[in-house]
Amino acid sequence: MRQEQPIGIFDSGIGGLTVASAVTQLLPEEEIIYFGDTAHLPYGEKSTAAIQSYAIKICNLLLEQDCKLILIACNSASAAAYDLVKAYVGSRALVMNVIDPVVDWAREEMKGKVLGLIGTKATVNSGVYQQKVAGLNAGIDLKAMPTPLLASMIEEGFYQNGVSHSVIAQYLSDKQLQGIDALVLACTHYPLIRLEIEEYYQNQVRVVDPSALVAKAVQARLMLSNLLRKTKVKEEPRFFVSDFTESFLHSTTRFFGREVHLTEYKLWE
Amino acid sequence: MRQEQPIGIFDSGIGGLTVASAVTQLLPEEEIIYFGDTAHLPYGEKSTAAIQSYAIKICNLLLEQDCKLILIACNSASAAAYDLVKAYVGSRALVMNVIDPVVDWAREEMKGKVLGLIGTKATVNSGVYQQKVAGLNAGIDLKAMPTPLLASMIEEGFYQNGVSHSVIAQYLSDKQLQGIDALVLACTHYPLIRLEIEEYYQNQVRVVDPSALVAKAVQARLMLSNLLRKTKVKEEPRFFVSDFTESFLHSTTRFFGREVHLTEYKLWE
Repeated sequence: MRQEQPIGIFDSGIGGLTVASAVTQLLPEEEIIYFGDTAHLPYGEKSTAAIQSYAIKICNLLLEQDCKLILIACNSASAAAYDLVKAYVGSRALVMNVIDPVVDWAREEMKGKVLGLIGTKATVNSGVYQQKVAGLNAGIDLKAMPTPLLASMIEEGFYQNGVSHSVIAQYLSDKQLQGIDALVLACTHYPLIRLEIEEYYQNQVRVVDPSALVAKAVQARLMLSNLLRKTKVKEEPRFFVSDFTESFLHSTTRFFGREVHLTEYKLWE
Repeated sequence: MRQEQPIGIFDSGIGGLTVASAVTQLLPEEEIIYFGDTAHLPYGEKSTAAIQSYAIKICNLLLEQDCKLILIACNSASAAAYDLVKAYVGSRALVMNVIDPVVDWAREEMKGKVLGLIGTKATVNSGVYQQKVAGLNAGIDLKAMPTPLLASMIEEGFYQNGVSHSVIAQYLSDKQLQGIDALVLACTHYPLIRLEIEEYYQNQVRVVDPSALVAKAVQARLMLSNLLRKTKVKEEPRFFVSDFTESFLHSTTRFFGREVHLTEYKLWE
């Protein structure tokens, strides 16, 4: 592999743009290719087998595009398909997910503490976070709860208003999430309601947005493999979606920080 | 075609079970085959082309199952794909949608009145209801507004609680929907919040659930074609989904009135 090859990032839709944004900010030299599987979003309600089959097809595309590193920028896909994708890709590219950087962070910062986590049904019910955190043997009490309405609520533009306050309060007041020292936002949509969640907790609970942790982990991994790009790429990041609608286009601004050009790529035909 | 052939009903997921339930109640003699495209739900955010391609694949399955009538029990799919499906199926089966029975009702009951309508983005932005109601030349002022969060809210079990009251009030208080005489629930999920919507309007606005209108239209159409089944079918209704999860299984009770057996049918491989 060469330093000049692009980084491939994929998600079920546009939520992963929050991760792509963190990666481009930390690593502005790198060429980025993003694939949002908007034809199948949301992954949070899909079965493991379905998510795995989508992930493999997307990886084929990213490998064709000669990516040196594939980042699964979706918690549901990271939970369901990381091991499969890693085995499938083999030595052709590095493969990373958005879960391990959070687990690594927890090992350093959460010893003996109570850690809350919210995400989709697919993510939480997979048990991946629970297994990995238990494997640390760091005395961390993980309280993970699915909060399935949050992603669609955010996609529909309901945040910083009465509806989002009401939904957030209803979820976070659940008895499963009491007594936590920190809360991991284990879905790439949730950074958009981070402020509201911090307000709910009146800053008494640390709210962790994994996207910065993930960007740093990508940097460290590329450095370790001597694959960090030295000269700034000339090309703008490229964004592909499996189903194009105007609504996705408008949402890119909220998730990526600026409006981007979306190219439809019919992966399924 | 013969009276003994089954009726095929399809939807993007489980919402169409409210329509299937109305059909089985009115026509208990008929054999029912239901297909929920849970691998692609929700259709409400998909492009027209995507919905059309899914609909054709589902119709192939229902035609293989020898259906005499195919009912598109989803407003988004009715709006995007009815004309295509009708042309594609040709004389092999009758094809019906969930929109025309509402338009027929409006012609009889809403002359010169103001009619509100809520549904998904795909349904409302297609303009199909607007065109068909305008085509009646009945002086009906149609005010249609997309309410995209409602379907996922209902699927996640948020109804008859603080969250659903807040979301419903936020949508229905929109200035686009003021001064209406009746409100059409143009999404098969919405019957589950009909009572809350009626409470919001304090029974001053007539709330129209199309599923009973659709069931009556199916009955009339079969009668006209001499295809109404005379002897009660022995088989239970059969329910197929393109992606199986426990969560869908549990939801069937709320949408169909009782828990049903779901069979996974991988239509996409």
